[in-house]
Amino acid sequence: MTLFKSPQGKFITIEGTEGVGKSTNIAFIKQWLANKQISIIETREPGGTPLAEQIRELLLSKREEDVDSKTELLLMFAARCQHVSQKIKPALSAGQWVLSDRFTDASYAYQGAGRALGLDKLKQLDAWALQGFKPDLTIMLDLPIDVGLARAAERSEKDRFESEQIEFFEKVRAGYLQIAEQEPERMKVIDATGSIEQVQQQIAQVLEVFYASYAKELTQEACW
Amino acid sequence: MTLFKSPQGKFITIEGTEGVGKSTNIAFIKQWLANKQISIIETREPGGTPLAEQIRELLLSKREEDVDSKTELLLMFAARCQHVSQKIKPALSAGQWVLSDRFTDASYAYQGAGRALGLDKLKQLDAWALQGFKPDLTIMLDLPIDVGLARAAERSEKDRFESEQIEFFEKVRAGYLQIAEQEPERMKVIDATGSIEQVQQQIAQVLEVFYASYAKELTQEACW
Repeated sequence: MTLFKSPQGKFITIEGTEGVGKSTNIAFIKQWLANKQISIIETREPGGTPLAEQIRELLLSKREEDVDSKTELLLMFAARCQHVSQKIKPALSAGQWVLSDRFTDASYAYQGAGRALGLDKLKQLDAWALQGFKPDLTIMLDLPIDVGLARAAERSEKDRFESEQIEFFEKVRAGYLQIAEQEPERMKVIDATGSIEQVQQQIAQVLEVFYASYAKELTQEACW
Repeated sequence: MTLFKSPQGKFITIEGTEGVGKSTNIAFIKQWLANKQISIIETREPGGTPLAEQIRELLLSKREEDVDSKTELLLMFAARCQHVSQKIKPALSAGQWVLSDRFTDASYAYQGAGRALGLDKLKQLDAWALQGFKPDLTIMLDLPIDVGLARAAERSEKDRFESEQIEFFEKVRAGYLQIAEQEPERMKVIDATGSIEQVQQQIAQVLEVFYASYAKELTQEACW
């Protein structure tokens, strides 16, 4: 007797520095998947559960007090543990796909590279908190920092991270590109300098390959 | 030429389960040290800085959402890193003594033993966050759980921790006693079942020994 088990959902994340166009392209990814009959839960980091959203508030608020880099990173991972245990993993287990605006790579880029906490320190906490849990696919929108900041400048008031200097964001971008170099299978870098159509054409290509591999997995499971 | 350098301050913490009499005895310790011309900064955990106090709020609030044990511990250490880097260490370096109502031992007892996260998991995060930083003296007020809870019941509404069951607090107490067994030099267990006078007589004896050792250190430093 074969018991039918609904397949595990897929976890996709989108990353990038300020003004690279994450929101616009999240909508595009949702629509692209919807065309394949896949509905995806949209979420974000830091945040995604009521407690994690409260932690986000603490992290983004500008404050008189200096925030210790380790405090910042521990808060990020506190929110992330809650997000993973209460929302992401239960959804994936139920066969749901999940799309998160930022995830652990952002900690490597912002706290590890940007705040210069170092890769080893990041890896230790990541292993402690998530024990190897990673996205199945990460789309990193890459744009020169000055272009992104000029785009982001048109928005509302800046939060504590957006108020950083250009040198900080250069380090964050380099941090992202370093992860992509180490994990080219998982993290796909999209050149976000072109028109929306050009950017979305690249994203669609990445999704096409990812979806084909998922469809293949499904067929293999069905053969068991 | 000898430059005068003010000696490093001492860091004392007070620990124990609910209703053991921490507040009353903190006042006693402050007065005892004041009689020796030592003024001490009083602080508490989780908390001690504006950001750490906001993290405390998140930790103590009762909520619908299940709080993941790792989330809870990461929040505790986030508050602690901020407390140590922004308040405790600067004070000690300036020669100030610091007295904290709870510190890292509480995480070992409440999250490590109480929530059964395990000693190794605790040690890893402690080493990551504090790199060996510990109190110079810890006074643990020890009381059977039922007696403490009966005393605490007379107070205002219970927070998320105080609402736990008796089995949880039994594990917490055992966790504290285990640390005291491993570090008898630093952590002194005070039998808190007797009258206030009996309890404070024991605390005074501990402080007397600690102060004598401090006075000896000072004399030695003066001889250099």
